[in-house]
Amino acid sequence: MEHSPLSLAQSLLRCPSVTPAEGGALAFSESVLREAGFEVHRPVFSEPGTPDVENLYARYGKGEPYLLFSGHTDVVPPGDTGRWRHDPFGGVIDGTELYGRGAVDMKGGIACMMAAALEFVRERPDFPGSIGFLITGDEEGPAINGTVKLLDWAKARGERFDACILGEPTNPERLGDMIKIGRRGSLTGHVTVEGKQGHVAYPHLADNPIPNLMRLLSALIAKPLDHGTDHFDASNLEVTTVDVGNPAANVIPAAARATFNIRFNDRWTPESLEEEIARRLSEAAGNHVRYTLTMEPTNAVAFLTEPNDFVGFIAKAIETETGIRPKLSTTGGTSDARFIVRDCPVVEFGLVGQTMHQVDERVAVADLDRLASIYRKVLDAYFPA
Amino acid sequence: MEHSPLSLAQSLLRCPSVTPAEGGALAFSESVLREAGFEVHRPVFSEPGTPDVENLYARYGKGEPYLLFSGHTDVVPPGDTGRWRHDPFGGVIDGTELYGRGAVDMKGGIACMMAAALEFVRERPDFPGSIGFLITGDEEGPAINGTVKLLDWAKARGERFDACILGEPTNPERLGDMIKIGRRGSLTGHVTVEGKQGHVAYPHLADNPIPNLMRLLSALIAKPLDHGTDHFDASNLEVTTVDVGNPAANVIPAAARATFNIRFNDRWTPESLEEEIARRLSEAAGNHVRYTLTMEPTNAVAFLTEPNDFVGFIAKAIETETGIRPKLSTTGGTSDARFIVRDCPVVEFGLVGQTMHQVDERVAVADLDRLASIYRKVLDAYFPA
Repeated sequence: MEHSPLSLAQSLLRCPSVTPAEGGALAFSESVLREAGFEVHRPVFSEPGTPDVENLYARYGKGEPYLLFSGHTDVVPPGDTGRWRHDPFGGVIDGTELYGRGAVDMKGGIACMMAAALEFVRERPDFPGSIGFLITGDEEGPAINGTVKLLDWAKARGERFDACILGEPTNPERLGDMIKIGRRGSLTGHVTVEGKQGHVAYPHLADNPIPNLMRLLSALIAKPLDHGTDHFDASNLEVTTVDVGNPAANVIPAAARATFNIRFNDRWTPESLEEEIARRLSEAAGNHVRYTLTMEPTNAVAFLTEPNDFVGFIAKAIETETGIRPKLSTTGGTSDARFIVRDCPVVEFGLVGQTMHQVDERVAVADLDRLASIYRKVLDAYFPA
Repeated sequence: MEHSPLSLAQSLLRCPSVTPAEGGALAFSESVLREAGFEVHRPVFSEPGTPDVENLYARYGKGEPYLLFSGHTDVVPPGDTGRWRHDPFGGVIDGTELYGRGAVDMKGGIACMMAAALEFVRERPDFPGSIGFLITGDEEGPAINGTVKLLDWAKARGERFDACILGEPTNPERLGDMIKIGRRGSLTGHVTVEGKQGHVAYPHLADNPIPNLMRLLSALIAKPLDHGTDHFDASNLEVTTVDVGNPAANVIPAAARATFNIRFNDRWTPESLEEEIARRLSEAAGNHVRYTLTMEPTNAVAFLTEPNDFVGFIAKAIETETGIRPKLSTTGGTSDARFIVRDCPVVEFGLVGQTMHQVDERVAVADLDRLASIYRKVLDAYFPA
């Protein structure tokens, strides 16, 4: 049975798979992939304090190289459905566009991957390598029972990957705009300055922590962390909150606390960055400001997939299909690619992200066909006949 | 019947008059004053949302000049009574000291005022002036149903005062250290900086309000407001809280808010101070920081009772009794004097404040006798025979 990217996307959009609900999306994917000859597994992962989450792992072929498609079928909630032009779980086509929660993030991408892979294995059932799908139902939620555990599960089974395409919506405006070949890391820290509480009328008997905290925060943002690297923008620090919580305007508070987040490039590791932060704070604090710095543990290190043959295949396929030479980018937030990159090179390329997480999320039907065609061209290049 | 300062203080301390409870303290005062020939009133004031509060107004004589003693019989809660050496409402003498909540703030002061006035009117019942007591039960609480309303009530009755002694504990260490001849004003304001919310990974699409708020606050504290005046310390601004309340470290917040409080001297009015604050903020904000400044209404203007005959009487009485030349000060927090000063000159002088609001609040018995003697000397000087 043939499956068009559009029909696959419609079927997936009709599954109400708001995290952590499976909503039928993985069951549908399983049936389609199994019918095409994939071996399919549906591991469910648990963790105290979080809901159980269903996931999917599928493989066609036993040989090498092994190309993995990765993504998620869970979606963010639709919000007020009355504000949508069409049922967010209806898979409705209106004019040239397909509407629905997940249309671009990223059931549309999953549909294109599956359409391309199904066509490829139908036409070349005996190709020498392997094609896999690693699809989680926990990307938009706590992301605890998702990709990380699924990768561990696969590794425990002896699975080894050579390359991975993650189908998140990477294009800012037009299909073909942008491939993500890396991501910045993310590091969060908290600074608390201790002062001495007292009455505002007797400031000499108190020690207001607020001006001291401002001094420390100013030192954090005064100088850029770097000026960017070959493939990355400059690292950036944002103070995301400052909280004292003192309701009494006649009281000098005892302590003041701030949180900052850094999106950092491959010039840094979380460890070297923490050292730099500690150094800046210490210098600004001198001997008289009492403060504590605590960094949150992070699994979001900066990574880069060096532009190589694999990246080249994808860029070439995009340019052939769309006429656009894609930008090789490392901008934006973190993604599950940061976990997969521990096991193999990852490149991210998917649909146009403009409507993601919004009311009336939608995708141009033509983009679905073109993205499937791009993925198919990548398969052809990766597994030359 | 004669009343010593000590016996009066003990009786008052045994009344559990934690705001807003009268606790018997005003009833006791009424009986003592009435017995001595004072005309006594006990107006009760109400305001929606606050408890009713009892107050006391008493007057002896009908002539002029009219000298008013002012104070409060309500006290702050004792806290954990198990931590007290003696029952906070027991009026217990231990060695040379009298223990109890309110011993210095300010049932002790009330006792000394009453002892001095009772002795004076007993010895000179036909002196040509008037002596009054304006005692509230709402100084430590919301202060809504207290001195302000009591003054209005008295004015409505046609009462006019020539001078007032407020018996708050003014001495930092020893009886005689300090007379308060004025108080700084207090003004509270709020600054809110508006930014644009966004994801930390895309700072160019957002506008973080926190660094801008820090810039504005720095401008507020960068330069002193003044360097003090003849009788006042320099005005002082404290940032008392900064609050963003953003729980998400991957989100740049939409707004950031701070509160500041200024204790200001007679170089400023609330209006001129607000102008200066607005000017500093506007200069620091330039064209690109969107912010709002809101000032809370204040009834705490700076005031000064110019050192005159009245202040001179008190200083002289103190020096004669204690051998100490008191400092004429305007330091510390606000007091009810800021309300009374609208009607007549006010000077504050009372006991030693060291243990006020603390566990084991206590007063030296000798200080009670000496303070009563000082008040008596003031009466003698104010109403020369």
